[in-house]
Amino acid sequence: MGKRTIKLTLAYDGTHFCGWQTQKQGERTVQKIVETALAELHNHEIKLYAAGRTDSGVHATGQVAHFHSGHRSLAPEQFTDAINSHLPHDVRVLKSEQVPESFHARFSAKARLYRYYLYSSPVGLPHYRRFCWRIRKILNINSLNALARPLVGSHDFTSFSSTKDPSTSKEREVFTSCFYTLGPFIVYEIRANAFLWKMVRTILGTIITLALQENTPDMMFDTLQAKDRSSAGPTAPARGLFLEGVRYG
Amino acid sequence: MGKRTIKLTLAYDGTHFCGWQTQKQGERTVQKIVETALAELHNHEIKLYAAGRTDSGVHATGQVAHFHSGHRSLAPEQFTDAINSHLPHDVRVLKSEQVPESFHARFSAKARLYRYYLYSSPVGLPHYRRFCWRIRKILNINSLNALARPLVGSHDFTSFSSTKDPSTSKEREVFTSCFYTLGPFIVYEIRANAFLWKMVRTILGTIITLALQENTPDMMFDTLQAKDRSSAGPTAPARGLFLEGVRYG
Repeated sequence: MGKRTIKLTLAYDGTHFCGWQTQKQGERTVQKIVETALAELHNHEIKLYAAGRTDSGVHATGQVAHFHSGHRSLAPEQFTDAINSHLPHDVRVLKSEQVPESFHARFSAKARLYRYYLYSSPVGLPHYRRFCWRIRKILNINSLNALARPLVGSHDFTSFSSTKDPSTSKEREVFTSCFYTLGPFIVYEIRANAFLWKMVRTILGTIITLALQENTPDMMFDTLQAKDRSSAGPTAPARGLFLEGVRYG
Repeated sequence: MGKRTIKLTLAYDGTHFCGWQTQKQGERTVQKIVETALAELHNHEIKLYAAGRTDSGVHATGQVAHFHSGHRSLAPEQFTDAINSHLPHDVRVLKSEQVPESFHARFSAKARLYRYYLYSSPVGLPHYRRFCWRIRKILNINSLNALARPLVGSHDFTSFSSTKDPSTSKEREVFTSCFYTLGPFIVYEIRANAFLWKMVRTILGTIITLALQENTPDMMFDTLQAKDRSSAGPTAPARGLFLEGVRYG
């Protein structure tokens, strides 16, 4: 029997992870923790590939990753419980399924969905402090949406990414960019074919800065046009950001 | 100027607290942490009285407490920010107000509202693991409500409380006892004039045990009638329980 390609849908609380990807020795990363679980299950090393390499402190409710398995006795859906029994409680496999050999979690992905949780209040919420960015001032959702709208479409997002992003082309296509209220939160939802490094957090840091200064949507156009990171606002904290889903095929 | 009575509404993440009340030296309790903040603000010791002495690991979004303050310069509503600046992020004052001298957070309370969060799924949610009890089996909300309903009214709740509860009378009046879905959760809501020690968690542990055994509501009647803790089920975990509000006057 040849190796099967297994697709995993993962959720994690990013608070105590140094992001997805293992870069330095000794860092606790999601990739390392799940690869360790896979190695325990297979009795040899397994390499895991993710759709999005989330940064330190960023959460996921719908990260997707794949690996090649020569495991002989587990049905595809049985990997869920089998892997979870080797994982700490801040990361869970939600679903496991067999996919064609050609599937690649990163390169086959057609779109990614991120959500960012804002809590706009003079006093913080103790239970949500790890999962949102609190803004002391009360934000106006119409103003936020006016600032978010110019990002929809294909644009060069150089202004809204880390200067260390290694991508050759900085053009990305944004399908959705909007704010809505959800319980006590204001949620920013952005869907795009792909994202540059720190793109969502730079967009959000810029929108909030402009909103607090009561700036107009023109400023978002100007920032896009500038193609210069220094024209944008600060990077929003990681703790409010969730990778919520990845679309394929 | 005499002392003012200040009422605080508090929220806390109970995960890293040994409950509300300081019992042993060296325990991190909510009472001790807030009393320390009050002492820093007043430059002398202040005693704080709560509506409900929540157990270790139990959360609050609407705990109420009061203290007597001789502080000369703060307006009642200014205590919120002043106390919060001395508190760690897992406990917050949501509101501060002046109340009549006769007000007592515990003895003036007419009703308390608790909610208990259940997550019924084969796989846990990493972000909510500290704030709910996960039940692997899928629960039926109609069956849960049939089991919850017999508790409404005035009853002797001896069966549903810790044998160490010191109250003379074990009679309490339950106004609401019901289950409903809220996002991914099943929430149990119970309102009563007052609660015995571990009452909500014993009720919930019993209902879940009976529901998983597909028992009928008669069993809840029988357990109430027995007036014996050993006739009830296990105590549900603290992490799903929230003191959500206290009603006065």
